[in-house]
Amino acid sequence: MRANPAVIKRLSVYLQLLRQLPPETANISATVIAKSIGYGDVQVRKDLASVSGEGKPRTGYEVGNLIKSLEEYLGFNYPKKAIIVGAGRLGTALLEYDGFKSWGLEIAAAFDADESKTDKSKRIYPVSDLKEYCKSGDIKIGIITVPASAAQQVCDLICETPIKAVWSFAPTHLYVPEGVEVQYENMAASLANILCNID
Amino acid sequence: MRANPAVIKRLSVYLQLLRQLPPETANISATVIAKSIGYGDVQVRKDLASVSGEGKPRTGYEVGNLIKSLEEYLGFNYPKKAIIVGAGRLGTALLEYDGFKSWGLEIAAAFDADESKTDKSKRIYPVSDLKEYCKSGDIKIGIITVPASAAQQVCDLICETPIKAVWSFAPTHLYVPEGVEVQYENMAASLANILCNID
Repeated sequence: MRANPAVIKRLSVYLQLLRQLPPETANISATVIAKSIGYGDVQVRKDLASVSGEGKPRTGYEVGNLIKSLEEYLGFNYPKKAIIVGAGRLGTALLEYDGFKSWGLEIAAAFDADESKTDKSKRIYPVSDLKEYCKSGDIKIGIITVPASAAQQVCDLICETPIKAVWSFAPTHLYVPEGVEVQYENMAASLANILCNID
Repeated sequence: MRANPAVIKRLSVYLQLLRQLPPETANISATVIAKSIGYGDVQVRKDLASVSGEGKPRTGYEVGNLIKSLEEYLGFNYPKKAIIVGAGRLGTALLEYDGFKSWGLEIAAAFDADESKTDKSKRIYPVSDLKEYCKSGDIKIGIITVPASAAQQVCDLICETPIKAVWSFAPTHLYVPEGVEVQYENMAASLANILCNID
């Protein structure tokens, strides 16, 4: 069963909030969480009930346990492996960012059509090696950081490997075979939401 | 009045699709748009009606006009200025990415607390210059690309300028004064949505 994306998003926001609490914070109530984030009280209670059961009256949730429950529910408790296609600035930024592990992602390698970018010490390989690299099925996620004009071609190539999940940063729609899921990191949509609210 | 974020997001997806059509495509129907993206027919018709009026029977929408209407509605028709705080890999990737202009954004400069990163030829300045740089009110958007642990402090600093819109890439919740809007580029939420659907 597929989880509801809006619920998953809220759960990850709770986790972000909880992880940034001072370490001495032992308990937190749904009301405080709701107020901190600007969600409704009932919403927070309902979301957390599905993951962790009810908070205790007066004291609320035990922070450490709630973090653990959320991490397990969201699949952040052990990292899954990904590869990047497109070793430009964004691709290499993602490749070298070591914060992804706490969000359940380990980026194993990056690939680029420009062979002059190949650098094994930085885990950057020619794109012609991609299918061989992914054939064991160990790599679960393909991240696309090429320009929009090249994204469909790269996506097709990823879909020839056992990878079933694509995370695309290219501002374009992608066509995939049945059974493959695409998650768009749609910066253009974020931007539109910002710009629409500027006078 | 604030626009509905879900509608705005869909409108930006239509625009992405339309922009990638072959230049010889003069017309497109709501049905074809719906099928290409995987949205419902009725949804697409309703969304586009609010922006551009109805499509013509049989031929549908004139692509060039529809793109123009969407760009105007979404505020992509003339770029608004932004600054970045955090000139690490992600920050400089965004700073040097020249695709933002077609999405209504012009990044004027980046700032970093590490003064050794200052490089005027690359539009990177010390963060101590931020308030002075933004005081004219010309800069509309503050982009945060510092680590989560530094994000609130940077956000507070941005809120001391006339900027009323924050776009945060830091995986953490931010507190802002009334009248300031935060748009989170929540990669952790995207990741959670990917990971939840991997076996």
